[in-house]
Amino acid sequence: MKQSQLFGKTTFEIPKDETSTNAQLLIRGGFVDKLMAGVYTYLPLGKRVLWKIENIIREEMNDIGGQEILMPALQKKEDWQTTGRWDIDVMMKVKTFFDKEYGLGWTHEEVVTPLAKKYIRSYKDFPFSVFQIQTKFRSEKRAKSGILRGREFSMKDLYSFHASEKDLDRFYDEAKDAYFKVFDRVGIKDQTYLTFASGGDFSKYSHEFQTIASAGEDTIYICDKCKIAVNKEIIEDLKNSCPKCGNKNLKEEKAIETGNIFKLKTRFSEAFNFKFIDENSRENIVLMGCYGLGPTRLMGTIIELSNDENGIIWPKSIAPYQVHLVSLGKDKNIINESVKIYKSLQEKKIEVLFDDRDESAGVKFKDSDLIGIPLRIVVSKKTLEKDSVEIKERQKKNFELIQINSLIEKIKELL
Amino acid sequence: MKQSQLFGKTTFEIPKDETSTNAQLLIRGGFVDKLMAGVYTYLPLGKRVLWKIENIIREEMNDIGGQEILMPALQKKEDWQTTGRWDIDVMMKVKTFFDKEYGLGWTHEEVVTPLAKKYIRSYKDFPFSVFQIQTKFRSEKRAKSGILRGREFSMKDLYSFHASEKDLDRFYDEAKDAYFKVFDRVGIKDQTYLTFASGGDFSKYSHEFQTIASAGEDTIYICDKCKIAVNKEIIEDLKNSCPKCGNKNLKEEKAIETGNIFKLKTRFSEAFNFKFIDENSRENIVLMGCYGLGPTRLMGTIIELSNDENGIIWPKSIAPYQVHLVSLGKDKNIINESVKIYKSLQEKKIEVLFDDRDESAGVKFKDSDLIGIPLRIVVSKKTLEKDSVEIKERQKKNFELIQINSLIEKIKELL
Repeated sequence: MKQSQLFGKTTFEIPKDETSTNAQLLIRGGFVDKLMAGVYTYLPLGKRVLWKIENIIREEMNDIGGQEILMPALQKKEDWQTTGRWDIDVMMKVKTFFDKEYGLGWTHEEVVTPLAKKYIRSYKDFPFSVFQIQTKFRSEKRAKSGILRGREFSMKDLYSFHASEKDLDRFYDEAKDAYFKVFDRVGIKDQTYLTFASGGDFSKYSHEFQTIASAGEDTIYICDKCKIAVNKEIIEDLKNSCPKCGNKNLKEEKAIETGNIFKLKTRFSEAFNFKFIDENSRENIVLMGCYGLGPTRLMGTIIELSNDENGIIWPKSIAPYQVHLVSLGKDKNIINESVKIYKSLQEKKIEVLFDDRDESAGVKFKDSDLIGIPLRIVVSKKTLEKDSVEIKERQKKNFELIQINSLIEKIKELL
Repeated sequence: MKQSQLFGKTTFEIPKDETSTNAQLLIRGGFVDKLMAGVYTYLPLGKRVLWKIENIIREEMNDIGGQEILMPALQKKEDWQTTGRWDIDVMMKVKTFFDKEYGLGWTHEEVVTPLAKKYIRSYKDFPFSVFQIQTKFRSEKRAKSGILRGREFSMKDLYSFHASEKDLDRFYDEAKDAYFKVFDRVGIKDQTYLTFASGGDFSKYSHEFQTIASAGEDTIYICDKCKIAVNKEIIEDLKNSCPKCGNKNLKEEKAIETGNIFKLKTRFSEAFNFKFIDENSRENIVLMGCYGLGPTRLMGTIIELSNDENGIIWPKSIAPYQVHLVSLGKDKNIINESVKIYKSLQEKKIEVLFDDRDESAGVKFKDSDLIGIPLRIVVSKKTLEKDSVEIKERQKKNFELIQINSLIEKIKELL
């Protein structure tokens, strides 16, 4: 992509109405635009990142047998009344001109449970799981954390269905592992802790995935021995100790809830009377689990963790482009050589953003740091005198001079 | 994918509340589930088809320089008041518990125009175009055409921006061509006509793409000489003649509007006072075009055109799987050989649905025709005696016996 044609522009003005680091950097880098509080447009650079995050999540969900579906955002009032959740604050309510009323989905138990009930009758049909990557809506009164907590946001929600508690437990552990694979692939595994939290009405504890970040709205207590954490909401119940080893020397941290998994058990299958026929021809109630992971929140979290005073530092796996090719100077020769390199990278299927704009070196370098692409390659009069380009990793201070004819090799080595 | 594990089941019951062919076949084939009138869940098979259609559209929009973004569904009341469209019937309105009101997007001129205005100032920035593939909402009083006209549906909307009318005209023609490439790739080009329709307030005519189908809600008049059509709404204005050649011998047909393109010109740029500085440092108003194409409607249209009394006949480019591998009989040998073939197809990256269910040949064949995958391969005791399988194209009556060791070659020849 030629940067001169890229829709969305960098800016060094700090958006007045945004206090969060993620929103400030995303807006300044031309990744997102804020339409209103909690509601953002993803510009081409931002859409590419989001797409990559969603694909990583998709692959890991497929890997544990999740089947991708797409449920609607518009939901039936009656189904939410069945579970007693129609009047929960977070629900946005929709009205049509002919006075039909819908709920706007902030979660999908009220859709997926009656849906599964239509197709599943026998123990032979278990276990199974379905997931979607879909837009959700939440009536958040305060929406001040950028894309960490939007009124409209992308969510991966997976639902699993089981004939026995043992099988639910087995799948639940597999999902836990899949979540850590996602966190690993997007570069935040080391900062992310499986965290014990309140289980609500129907389970002693639930599990969240909390990622340590100063921007986090949650407080957690980490046990360094077990590499797990406890949410503040239940730390007193646990007498300030680790639920695994009893360690009382826990470390307090601010954290972002990047995912949660929950044994719903029979909460929704009972509400919708979702039963199956077991091996002995007896009716049994279905057991369920749900597993949430928000791509947009994950994107915001990664930025909160991976930035410096100059801008974003994207992990390679989700960077909008792998290479930022920066051409300096107006000489025909420089332009021609830059275009040649641009084309050769494209031929090798290396994702490249080509800064072909008529701007100063200072502006181009500042923009490049702000956008945060992993590798920066500079073509200038000086480098071309040595048949070379400068190559620099975003997180490093120093660049290296590389012969143009060994550039592709060098890039592949660094990516 | 093993069919025994596939979420969503076929049924030969005709859904009582669906009169449209597309919805009946999609529900019976296990592609979609109806949540309520005009609102559907896409099950794994349906999601795969939708995904492929969206990708074809995406590729063609990228090809004419469209940059992919993602705008929100929640929209600002004030922006819709600016253009005078807030109180249009089709708008669904959203309320939060803290009494904030939003519009739910059925189109995005009210978002994209102020958005572009933020980034574009100079003639050097033109032309450019952005598109999204996103979920839209419409308050349709009657929603009886299955996925042809939903209350919630997928839409590709592209918006182009120009410094001159000449450039708008140029891009408009390119978009027209891109649309025909999409129709070609999904197999409905021959039935699809560029159709002159009413231009509304600000243009004499607009163009629609109308695909001939008995389920269509529109009536068009086709000029066989020019291969174009005229929408009924303007045929009297045109004195019942072709706008190109004057031919009065036009053929009346029912048709589905599968796409539309529109020169918005200054309708929205004026409303939002979106100007740019031209080469002579003068302020000028921006010109715009918009281009709609709905993946879900396209999916419904294809089914309306491509089916027989037994079920759907998917074009290869968008079929959920390329091969339906059907195993008949409970012999260990048959099962083992079928699994071997299943694995070898997967290794060759041929998309295969493997009917490994414990069902009769009759049930399996009926299901296979209903689901409509392009190639059916049958493994049975009889075929294995000759080291062979039966291969049959969905739209053909006869099958061919093929040696297993030349199966891959044969599949590649037919796909």
